[in-house]
Amino acid sequence: MGDLSLIKCIAFDADDTLWVNETYFLETEQAYCELFKDIIPEKEMSEKLFATEMRNLSIYGFGVKSFTLSMIETALNLNHPSVTKERISKALKLGQDLLKQPVEVFPEVNQILVQLKNKYRLIVATKGDLHHQERKLKDTGMEAFFHHIEIMSDKKEKNYLNLLNHLDIKPQQFLMIGNSLKSDIEPVINIGAQAIHIPFHHTWEFEKASQQPLNQKNYFQVEKITDIMTIIPI
Amino acid sequence: MGDLSLIKCIAFDADDTLWVNETYFLETEQAYCELFKDIIPEKEMSEKLFATEMRNLSIYGFGVKSFTLSMIETALNLNHPSVTKERISKALKLGQDLLKQPVEVFPEVNQILVQLKNKYRLIVATKGDLHHQERKLKDTGMEAFFHHIEIMSDKKEKNYLNLLNHLDIKPQQFLMIGNSLKSDIEPVINIGAQAIHIPFHHTWEFEKASQQPLNQKNYFQVEKITDIMTIIPI
Repeated sequence: MGDLSLIKCIAFDADDTLWVNETYFLETEQAYCELFKDIIPEKEMSEKLFATEMRNLSIYGFGVKSFTLSMIETALNLNHPSVTKERISKALKLGQDLLKQPVEVFPEVNQILVQLKNKYRLIVATKGDLHHQERKLKDTGMEAFFHHIEIMSDKKEKNYLNLLNHLDIKPQQFLMIGNSLKSDIEPVINIGAQAIHIPFHHTWEFEKASQQPLNQKNYFQVEKITDIMTIIPI
Repeated sequence: MGDLSLIKCIAFDADDTLWVNETYFLETEQAYCELFKDIIPEKEMSEKLFATEMRNLSIYGFGVKSFTLSMIETALNLNHPSVTKERISKALKLGQDLLKQPVEVFPEVNQILVQLKNKYRLIVATKGDLHHQERKLKDTGMEAFFHHIEIMSDKKEKNYLNLLNHLDIKPQQFLMIGNSLKSDIEPVINIGAQAIHIPFHHTWEFEKASQQPLNQKNYFQVEKITDIMTIIPI
């Protein structure tokens, strides 16, 4: 088991850790697939979209804008006369609506952050788009709790090592809290830092890819975000 | 005149400061406008695109993906039967090509960074997309020179104040180097930090908007990036 008394900086993943995200992505994807269901079965369209997203990942990276561009590309690639410009416009609009989606913060997040802020440097560490994540923090009034937002182009060991270097702290002084085993937990414990996993009921296909067994000694798992207060020293 | 002997951290704007950028954006925009020139005069299309970009700025932010989404939206909004899906696909492809564009670093940038790195903390401070800017730094081998990339959702006084807080330094210890008076110079000198302006021959319409007269005492202007070595103490 790690030693949380050493922690100086706590990094929170944003989407599906501080607020609901994947649920809205799924709703958008469902609306998108439904838009073309007279041309292609929804499940097949969803698979095509995921394939486009993965193909584009190296040039687009993560976030809603990348997702929207992949929705448009997937529709165009159907190469079907019934894929009208009106439908492409609707796909574009779905992406804009997703960006404008009001933020649904998990219960009691603010109360937790108020308490933690006095003792720790709090940051947000996310793969999302800075512009979009800043807007969400501002809309929820949570920006005052965080020292800064750390946008990570990916969440692999190398990216976390860069982050520690950037923060000028040692691995054991860093605690990551997030919902993705693949992105928030595994790479963090692999570099000797500490992590708390809070599973979310929806997980994006990309984040499910992990097969690696975890050393259960090096991280904690809790059910909901308020439970972290039972293990982090205050 | 500022006192550069106080400087601890030097932040470089990336696009059009370390490498050519606006030139490629302009070429892409020209190719895009040409794609629809049988429907609408190129100048008019360019104005429509800029209007879409400005309208979308609050939800999309800056960068090539935002630009691509605005290219697609502008074409769809022409609402013209000759705007075929093939043309929309070409607009999408123009954006992808822009993201894949090889990086043309300004002459002798590497030599300068090698020298500065020993004495100062160097960072990249950019409004671009992290994924894209990291790729450029990696491709050019310049990533080793920089402590980290600071992605800024905007470059206003408030954003620079956040950055100084994040870096834990005082304004007079911070030097910003960039090509945009509006984004890299004015807000920086307004918060009491220091700046060096290196004009680039192409400036995006958005960056031209500044009308504010500058207090010439608080910043330097040089012709090319190598000239900064004549004023920064080594």
